[in-house]
Amino acid sequence: MATQSMRPGRILPAPEGFLSRRDVARVEGGRRQFLRRAFLAAVGAAAAGAGLAAPRRAGAQAAGEGDPAILELPAHSKSLGQPVAARGYGMPSRYEMNLQRRESPGLTRVSQASVSFAPLQGLFGIVTPNGLHFERHHQGWHDVDPTRHRLLVNGLVKVAKVYTMDDLMRMPSVSRLHFIECGANTGMEWGNVAVPTVQYTHGMLSCCEFTGVRVAVLLDDCGVDRKKGKFVLAEGADGSGLTRTIAIERALDDAIVAWGMNGEMLRPENGYPLRLVVPGVQGVSWVKWLRRLEVGDQPYGAKDDVLHYVDLMPDGTHRQYASIQECKSVITSPSGGQVLLDRGYYNVTGLGWSGRGRIKRVDVSFDGGRNWRTARLEPPVLPKCLTRFNVDWVWDGSPAVLQSRAIGETGYVQPTSAQLRAVRGTRSIYHNNAIQSWQVAASGEVSNVRVS
Amino acid sequence: MATQSMRPGRILPAPEGFLSRRDVARVEGGRRQFLRRAFLAAVGAAAAGAGLAAPRRAGAQAAGEGDPAILELPAHSKSLGQPVAARGYGMPSRYEMNLQRRESPGLTRVSQASVSFAPLQGLFGIVTPNGLHFERHHQGWHDVDPTRHRLLVNGLVKVAKVYTMDDLMRMPSVSRLHFIECGANTGMEWGNVAVPTVQYTHGMLSCCEFTGVRVAVLLDDCGVDRKKGKFVLAEGADGSGLTRTIAIERALDDAIVAWGMNGEMLRPENGYPLRLVVPGVQGVSWVKWLRRLEVGDQPYGAKDDVLHYVDLMPDGTHRQYASIQECKSVITSPSGGQVLLDRGYYNVTGLGWSGRGRIKRVDVSFDGGRNWRTARLEPPVLPKCLTRFNVDWVWDGSPAVLQSRAIGETGYVQPTSAQLRAVRGTRSIYHNNAIQSWQVAASGEVSNVRVS
Repeated sequence: MATQSMRPGRILPAPEGFLSRRDVARVEGGRRQFLRRAFLAAVGAAAAGAGLAAPRRAGAQAAGEGDPAILELPAHSKSLGQPVAARGYGMPSRYEMNLQRRESPGLTRVSQASVSFAPLQGLFGIVTPNGLHFERHHQGWHDVDPTRHRLLVNGLVKVAKVYTMDDLMRMPSVSRLHFIECGANTGMEWGNVAVPTVQYTHGMLSCCEFTGVRVAVLLDDCGVDRKKGKFVLAEGADGSGLTRTIAIERALDDAIVAWGMNGEMLRPENGYPLRLVVPGVQGVSWVKWLRRLEVGDQPYGAKDDVLHYVDLMPDGTHRQYASIQECKSVITSPSGGQVLLDRGYYNVTGLGWSGRGRIKRVDVSFDGGRNWRTARLEPPVLPKCLTRFNVDWVWDGSPAVLQSRAIGETGYVQPTSAQLRAVRGTRSIYHNNAIQSWQVAASGEVSNVRVS
Repeated sequence: MATQSMRPGRILPAPEGFLSRRDVARVEGGRRQFLRRAFLAAVGAAAAGAGLAAPRRAGAQAAGEGDPAILELPAHSKSLGQPVAARGYGMPSRYEMNLQRRESPGLTRVSQASVSFAPLQGLFGIVTPNGLHFERHHQGWHDVDPTRHRLLVNGLVKVAKVYTMDDLMRMPSVSRLHFIECGANTGMEWGNVAVPTVQYTHGMLSCCEFTGVRVAVLLDDCGVDRKKGKFVLAEGADGSGLTRTIAIERALDDAIVAWGMNGEMLRPENGYPLRLVVPGVQGVSWVKWLRRLEVGDQPYGAKDDVLHYVDLMPDGTHRQYASIQECKSVITSPSGGQVLLDRGYYNVTGLGWSGRGRIKRVDVSFDGGRNWRTARLEPPVLPKCLTRFNVDWVWDGSPAVLQSRAIGETGYVQPTSAQLRAVRGTRSIYHNNAIQSWQVAASGEVSNVRVS
């Protein structure tokens, strides 16, 4: 039987009956042809009932209402497909190849000391696929040979030790889902509205399940001096010699020397084979290609501590060591650059996170902050982890301004842009956790706007 | 300064001092050289303290004890690396390319109706990376054009409807982490011990965060008859015309028509652009390339319901519709085919799961089931989701038999192989959730054994 096509609106004859036990018994020897008939017949039957016309929330068509595509059985329903393991390591569909992490042209002088942003507008849930995890390098990335990589633990410890990857991977391990956000995320929004899409406003943000050994276990293995030791220096093996100071209580609490990322080994551009995970703290402290942890009795004042990632305050002073990423959220869809195709129902979705614990609530406004509605939080809601929220919205076709506002478990409420500027001024680069506004025009076009 | 190498055991001169605020101030203009010096010096300093000799739990070397590799600064510490977004969609390290899903040669006649197994022995945590998700196809996979794909909902509904992907993705969505296990997973272990590694014994198992619209929302959108409707038929668009019956209470409870998988769109080999997610139920019901849901008043008795995925019981009858995956666990490392390189401490790790809810506890035995120790469960512990467990073990070098035993929140205890056979016989293919045994030989080699 050849495939058929059907004129829009044409009603097929009533079917012989839907797929039932009787039908299956009858179909021996001609199963494939039967199934094709059953599918087409069912579409026709559906068309016969279309006069009942229930409300169409999401714009679905009553079957048979003029959708010829479904009545032509496509090639993939009639042929032998690809074998298993056709691709040793799987890749996304060819129809999704446009969803990529992207560099913001001209953001830095060289692409080795730059950022690629995660495409938040096209991501779901809380897990960031490893192939789309944001990147931030200070001197480019390398694919480091794990058999030659070493981690040195030294400083105020009884015995300084050198660990191979084999040594580390035998140690007691933990797995934890945590977000990682660059301290400079949303940094361009301190000035005028500068970038059009959520990929560029908030895309220095990702979330993974990390697996590794707790820093506390390593330091105890070396006999850390818990009285004198106040700080830990983490040092990377890349050419930038990136070094960051971490307070020892934070390192002993929930920091991890990680090799696993979403079930597999870290990706080279995310620090393979070893990176430091410091939950709740800005990404620069999650030192990649980690080669050393040193325990000291004072902050190390490394260049990445005191010259970069500091906040220029309104009084002209610099705020250093502002490491914790405060409570924040953003609507990822609809968001800047997207277009609403029609009025009616939309699932508005986004992410909330806090470096201080769990997200307690996310509110969403459709009128620029005058009225707020509480969003649904998708489980699991975990500490120092992204939380996905969803909220119903029926768009009536008039202009609207969409905002989300996260509330952390400490009671902290994500500030408006005006509230944040009142404290921090406008000359900062880092640590912008203000409420983000997306304007929906009558045309359906969504754009990045500032609402004070 | 050229790189240096160092004879094993040689002690470097005492360092000028570790990286401190003073050092950073001094280093202006020569930072890179300084860092190189600081790292080498720190290694030397560590060596000087090596005589204290704390116990080495994981076999790490006291620094300077003869590890020349770390004293040669590698090329990646002295050069400019790769730029951001060097690879539009990232891939694993070249050192990890051996970790792949693999087909079991000769398992089926053609690779289009076969399985590729996930490499559980090399995975961490609970998230399965999409590129390593197991595959099971009945007639091969296709990369289906999402703009032409349709979902028909028909049967005992007021209005049958056809949904485009755009229609569906506007609807209220949920995100949930769930395991998926093929009903035939561990099927080869019903007979004699047949396959050597956990990839082949348990690798038809994966776990993802799925995003989509609840089946309940779709059925209500079409005005499902909740009195007469008792079953839902799910039909795939591939050439095998795969069809499965699902009890409507299960479909209305937590089943999802999903497009998202670990944050991104489904992979083609996992049903892109649409698959049914039926938490806790065997994988065959998670129909891929989903094109139809039909509501009926009796089980459909499709070939995939009544001829396949049924259990041949000792009395000669076939048990049909045994859909729920019972509570189960397996140690993934150490596991068959691996070798313990030395005596001493090991982190023994594995996975537990239950189709009926959460994992309450996992016990591990090192003596073939005589004594049991409770493992640590890594958070989050979610219903119908993999749970990662870890447990400490110090191997004394003598032969051992490792087993894990999961207990579900219902109180159900994973059975031994003998207990399961007492009820189910030995002629089954499907639904084998018996305790798995790995034997560690004195040589350190680990192999698959049966312990009754």
